[in-house]
Amino acid sequence: MPDEPRVAPHGDPFAWTEGARRTREHAGLVRELRPRAAESALLDLAGNDYLGLSRHPRVTEAAAAAALRWGAGATGSRLVTGSTELHAELEAELAEFCGFEAALVLSSGYAANIAALTALTARGGLLVSDAGNHASLIDGCRLSRAETAVVPHADPEAVRKALDGHGGRTLAVTDSVFSVDGDAAPLGALAEVCRGHGAGLVVDDAHGLGVVGDGGRGAPHAAGIAGATGVVATVTLSKSLGSQGGAVLGPAHVIAQLVDTARTFIFDTGLAPAAAGAALAALRCVRGEPERPLRVRAAATTLYDGLRAAGLHASRPDAAVISVRAPSPDDAVRWAAACRDSGLHVGCFRPPSVPDGVSRLRLTARADLTGEQLERAVHTIAEHAPGGAR
Amino acid sequence: MPDEPRVAPHGDPFAWTEGARRTREHAGLVRELRPRAAESALLDLAGNDYLGLSRHPRVTEAAAAAALRWGAGATGSRLVTGSTELHAELEAELAEFCGFEAALVLSSGYAANIAALTALTARGGLLVSDAGNHASLIDGCRLSRAETAVVPHADPEAVRKALDGHGGRTLAVTDSVFSVDGDAAPLGALAEVCRGHGAGLVVDDAHGLGVVGDGGRGAPHAAGIAGATGVVATVTLSKSLGSQGGAVLGPAHVIAQLVDTARTFIFDTGLAPAAAGAALAALRCVRGEPERPLRVRAAATTLYDGLRAAGLHASRPDAAVISVRAPSPDDAVRWAAACRDSGLHVGCFRPPSVPDGVSRLRLTARADLTGEQLERAVHTIAEHAPGGAR
Repeated sequence: MPDEPRVAPHGDPFAWTEGARRTREHAGLVRELRPRAAESALLDLAGNDYLGLSRHPRVTEAAAAAALRWGAGATGSRLVTGSTELHAELEAELAEFCGFEAALVLSSGYAANIAALTALTARGGLLVSDAGNHASLIDGCRLSRAETAVVPHADPEAVRKALDGHGGRTLAVTDSVFSVDGDAAPLGALAEVCRGHGAGLVVDDAHGLGVVGDGGRGAPHAAGIAGATGVVATVTLSKSLGSQGGAVLGPAHVIAQLVDTARTFIFDTGLAPAAAGAALAALRCVRGEPERPLRVRAAATTLYDGLRAAGLHASRPDAAVISVRAPSPDDAVRWAAACRDSGLHVGCFRPPSVPDGVSRLRLTARADLTGEQLERAVHTIAEHAPGGAR
Repeated sequence: MPDEPRVAPHGDPFAWTEGARRTREHAGLVRELRPRAAESALLDLAGNDYLGLSRHPRVTEAAAAAALRWGAGATGSRLVTGSTELHAELEAELAEFCGFEAALVLSSGYAANIAALTALTARGGLLVSDAGNHASLIDGCRLSRAETAVVPHADPEAVRKALDGHGGRTLAVTDSVFSVDGDAAPLGALAEVCRGHGAGLVVDDAHGLGVVGDGGRGAPHAAGIAGATGVVATVTLSKSLGSQGGAVLGPAHVIAQLVDTARTFIFDTGLAPAAAGAALAALRCVRGEPERPLRVRAAATTLYDGLRAAGLHASRPDAAVISVRAPSPDDAVRWAAACRDSGLHVGCFRPPSVPDGVSRLRLTARADLTGEQLERAVHTIAEHAPGGAR
């Protein structure tokens, strides 16, 4: 009798992914990556390049110049070799523009949110999180050692109740503009609740910076809470600023706490110089052309009015994002595909990208869209609306 | 009597950070960002640009060209507008080079590790994690819904015991080359244990790609497990490839699972075109100049031999990383500062960046270091060694 093999060989430990994929197929939830060409004839209402700066010559030339001057990568953690004078310059100008004392740049908005929520909480503390918050805030809550209380969407009273009587460190956290429906958080009321309870407030302004507030200074600035004691904001450099990366904005002693303890800051390579240079150039564009934020908000309103006039369930935009409800995930996919066949690129959001499980088209306005383009977009979306969408 | 204010104003909810900073100061654990200039006279043994490609003209010019052609940012999630043909090209060449069926590029290695560990596990499953694993793997374990068992460092028998008798989905996870001491994981033995138990194996090859294996194809390739059933690798584009970003490599059905379900892939802006273009150019440099990986390993050996000859506690390098133990965090800081004053930049790793709490100098070899530079580095480090370092 031959020796028994020392280990019994099994099959593929990832074979279960095939079944998982079939389940998603039945539910209309399979994704396909569609690499795009450098130039496209499609009208883009799907990206988050709200101010149209991602391809602005001053921005792309700044990216190119930074790569040539500083190298293609930061070469290490920001704590070791990854901090350049370019990062410091970007941090200073970003903080000043948004009205905060200090800023810290990370490699993504996702990393910035995790950094803020993990470094500013501790075991025994409490995080109060809006039910509509972005995935990166949810992951930040899960990685923090504090307890998390999820409260109903945009409900300062619910935040107050959750904070009531908690003796430890407390933090409320919210998107400023929610990424799916584009509605604004009640920042003023939330800040008042937090002040009254000695709680910190972390605001993710990913969709507010460059769009909301005086000259695009963002939602905290518009709400009069930028730079206030106890208020921390996070932003992304990859939406209005057309680049890549994220940042945390707040009091200098809060930023110092992140430098020393935030794992997604310490254990990550610093943002590439090209991305830092592009974001800095884009920020200067926004300062120099304060009409861009006005234009993107006007474009969003025009889109919304047209879609409502066509009888569709469009969300009222508080910034640049509008969603249009679809009867089912499959309907949403077919609707978006029909738009694409007609030359219009719109987002198609399905579970798990929608907090309430309702699939949607997601549209984004841009500062550089013309009246004719906006009209064409409304017409195309209305023309291909599935039964039940009205 | 005046009305009582509706909310009693509290002080600064982040006032505790001041005390936390003082505690860190007493322990020698405060960090300071030192933004560097574009050009430096310091000899750099601190960065992770192992092959010296971050400033290679072909790489920086590719970054610049990509920004000008594709824009400064990806403009959205890879699932919406953030996938370009450049991303697809990079994924195909990276998979082919490392010997895997498919690849998925994310905005950082941190995000890649979280994506792999969260998308490939489920509640009721088990993750078996090496005690020396990188922070991003630890955070991936914490974000996964599976239970995590931390096992002693580089110990396949401990992994076997942890897996024994577990009925659900199981995954072992390890760095290929550990980031602090530069030692290699026993990948062959780990893969055998996993095969015998029907467990998947996730290998973070951040410090292996470009340094280890035939032509720098990485540690999984060197161990003969690249492309094997049940094996997934993650890599970073920000070390040997001199750029920014990360990737997951594995069977196509595993990558498809990540596209549909990995939150740090779905909810993050795609990698900036400049970073994708630079990484692709760097990858082609590695293919075209297979002597670079040989040179960096030879440089690491030279450093190690010199430091040991000087009586220092240097770790034997299995790739490009060497650590030298310091008696205390303060000693490590002073030692690194003295080296810097003598023209040598070395890393200084203190808690929480060291798994065992022992502070160290961390040195990295580069393919483009000359014999004279290596000799100078050893001399400088030995000259400034504190009492107790030998």
